[in-house]
Amino acid sequence: MTSEIPSSVTTPKTDDIAAQVTAANKLAVERMLAAEPVLVDVVNAQEAIPELAEGRKILHAGPPIDWSRMCGPMRGAIAGIAVFEGWAGSLADAENMAAAGEFEFHPNHHFNAVGPMTGMTTRSQPLMVVENRKFGNRAFCAINEGLGKVMRFGGNDESVLKRLAWLRDVAGPLMQQALRGSDGVDVKNVIARGLTMGDEMHQRNVACSGLLLRELSPHLARVSKDADQLAELLAFMGGNDQFFLNVGMATGKSIMDPVRDIPMSTIVTAMSRNGTDFGIRVSSLGDRWFTAAVEMPQGLYFPGFTEKDANPDMGDSTIVETIGLGGFAMGASPAVAGFVGAGAASDAGNYTRSMLDICFSENPEWSIPGLDYQGVPTGIDIRRVVDAGVAPVINTGIAHREPGIGQVGAGIVRAPMDCFTDALEAFALQLGI
Amino acid sequence: MTSEIPSSVTTPKTDDIAAQVTAANKLAVERMLAAEPVLVDVVNAQEAIPELAEGRKILHAGPPIDWSRMCGPMRGAIAGIAVFEGWAGSLADAENMAAAGEFEFHPNHHFNAVGPMTGMTTRSQPLMVVENRKFGNRAFCAINEGLGKVMRFGGNDESVLKRLAWLRDVAGPLMQQALRGSDGVDVKNVIARGLTMGDEMHQRNVACSGLLLRELSPHLARVSKDADQLAELLAFMGGNDQFFLNVGMATGKSIMDPVRDIPMSTIVTAMSRNGTDFGIRVSSLGDRWFTAAVEMPQGLYFPGFTEKDANPDMGDSTIVETIGLGGFAMGASPAVAGFVGAGAASDAGNYTRSMLDICFSENPEWSIPGLDYQGVPTGIDIRRVVDAGVAPVINTGIAHREPGIGQVGAGIVRAPMDCFTDALEAFALQLGI
Repeated sequence: MTSEIPSSVTTPKTDDIAAQVTAANKLAVERMLAAEPVLVDVVNAQEAIPELAEGRKILHAGPPIDWSRMCGPMRGAIAGIAVFEGWAGSLADAENMAAAGEFEFHPNHHFNAVGPMTGMTTRSQPLMVVENRKFGNRAFCAINEGLGKVMRFGGNDESVLKRLAWLRDVAGPLMQQALRGSDGVDVKNVIARGLTMGDEMHQRNVACSGLLLRELSPHLARVSKDADQLAELLAFMGGNDQFFLNVGMATGKSIMDPVRDIPMSTIVTAMSRNGTDFGIRVSSLGDRWFTAAVEMPQGLYFPGFTEKDANPDMGDSTIVETIGLGGFAMGASPAVAGFVGAGAASDAGNYTRSMLDICFSENPEWSIPGLDYQGVPTGIDIRRVVDAGVAPVINTGIAHREPGIGQVGAGIVRAPMDCFTDALEAFALQLGI
Repeated sequence: MTSEIPSSVTTPKTDDIAAQVTAANKLAVERMLAAEPVLVDVVNAQEAIPELAEGRKILHAGPPIDWSRMCGPMRGAIAGIAVFEGWAGSLADAENMAAAGEFEFHPNHHFNAVGPMTGMTTRSQPLMVVENRKFGNRAFCAINEGLGKVMRFGGNDESVLKRLAWLRDVAGPLMQQALRGSDGVDVKNVIARGLTMGDEMHQRNVACSGLLLRELSPHLARVSKDADQLAELLAFMGGNDQFFLNVGMATGKSIMDPVRDIPMSTIVTAMSRNGTDFGIRVSSLGDRWFTAAVEMPQGLYFPGFTEKDANPDMGDSTIVETIGLGGFAMGASPAVAGFVGAGAASDAGNYTRSMLDICFSENPEWSIPGLDYQGVPTGIDIRRVVDAGVAPVINTGIAHREPGIGQVGAGIVRAPMDCFTDALEAFALQLGI
């Protein structure tokens, strides 16, 4: 069509820039598609991230934030993890210490890590390791705690800390031995199969969790020295439909990190929220976060809760939307549409189709049978988001706004458009336009 | 509409009969929906079916058939199982003995059992037990052998017999102990979940196989005394996407047996094929088989094979279509449409919709998200089949026509219409119409 436009409208300069951006975005998506994410290990956090060994560092979900602006469930999780790490004797002590500046807060994203919801990462937790074998980088995420009262939703009572101790002392070491005795788990393949089995890998991970158990259970059986511990871990993994979520998140991080810092690329490399701010990063714009107030999910609430109880959107889990899953793959998961209140199951494909409009490409290896093997939308382009006026759609869990309570529902939410317009302005400014 | 028809057309007698048939079919479907199938045990075949302890009895798939009319893969399996049971020293000996009448052949269906493809059931095999807790009856099926060269597709070499011995000596006993240490596996629930995960439970069982592994693996870990054996069994179950098929089949048998012998009911209680004949049974027509020549599947062949290599349709596995799964649930499984050559994935729902026309009802507990939670078609009514001229659709594996080779493809096939017209004639005759 451009050939029909008078040459006075498209100057050589903007033409040239458009071609450079297209080439840069093509490279970005090529790197995404070339990724070879493999779950290879579980390691202690301070081994994975040596900086955690010193001081009282707490990594959290989303862009940077200080204690004074943190939402309720994030504060609840901070207090709980400080007790878990032995830095505070009680939740109240921990809150006082936090207010007095005795903890250092950093985003997970600044340390090759991601975490769901509150996203607590501290020195003694076991972290799963996904290695992108194509580019040699590694990404980390804690082991999923299961449903109910859990720290990622702001839970911090005795039962929550006890489970974290079990993950550290039993589950983590067993998974470590099992993975080290295996060739690793090819996560790209697991996700491809999951998409044919109704998972979108954000609010529905039941298929991938089962596929992961299939791969890991023989290795776990070989390394276990204690039948009861083995049975307990198998039951924990098998009883947690969201077990795979954290693997998918580390996978997303491992795929997107090599896409950072491509000059001229307008592809989004991270989307993340801390419960107060939503932040995005863009390939050619370095490590800068473009933030806006995070939105409130529209969704369905568990019995006894309403939207008045809900905290705004939270977590690093939007890394899965960044790689074309979650809300972007809703068409693969008609069953999730009802769970997140996204309308009729048969309309789930419309979400996927609309996300194609804001993405540079699609992923032929991650395709959706029910949409006649449409590949998932891949490579969110800030130009397309702004041009189309369509913000990325996200499937998300909803936490109670008060600390210590936990999950109250699930829903869908949009990334705030201001993140994308601000980033596009910064991109233009950088080019001197 | 009947009120507008002149009374001369509908006589009191036929009106009355129609009402009785409707009431009988309502009862039949109520029994189907009330079933509570639970996988409770694995037992030695001669414990499950005491008649197998005496003589050289071989149970096979489909309606009754003698050696002279058996197809190639059925003969291959008979020869193999006779060697396995120690009745013959070689495959050649076994064939001579079969021709000389030294084995007794009976359908699985005559002994509360079912078997896929050739469906061999003999005295020393371990059989899975599904109990219908609502009605107290039990149904049996052997453990799935996996893919590749296997006895159900007519394979009979050393590797096939070795695997059967492992199932008898290792897998069966471990599964027995695990199930006896559990409350059993609620198969109705597993199938309900599988339908939301892309399984149709005939040619696609990957989700249900994983769900079953999730349920069984902790119990297996608790009872195992040998880590290598446990790892081997977990790897076998986890590496076999069709592992659940045989559980689903025993489930189908356990659901349909209490539906037999309801006076006036025109609901199909079994569909089955022996590779030569297709047979159906109808509730009010007792144990009689209505048979016709079995048809050739239309499908896709594995590399190196064509339809010239194919044996006609075979196996008791059509019990899953009898309960509304397999081809009837194609809409749940867009990914299977490509595998069986049934056209575009997005058209898979059309198969399910067309089967609603020949069924008495649908199953609200087994619903298909992608079809906005349409329940699977339930209760094949021979009157509707004949009236609509639409035969039940079946998703099936395809065996090589020669003994000893194995699976060559997968496809779809229709039940022969003659079975239904013959049964309807017999039904009319019984009523004196």
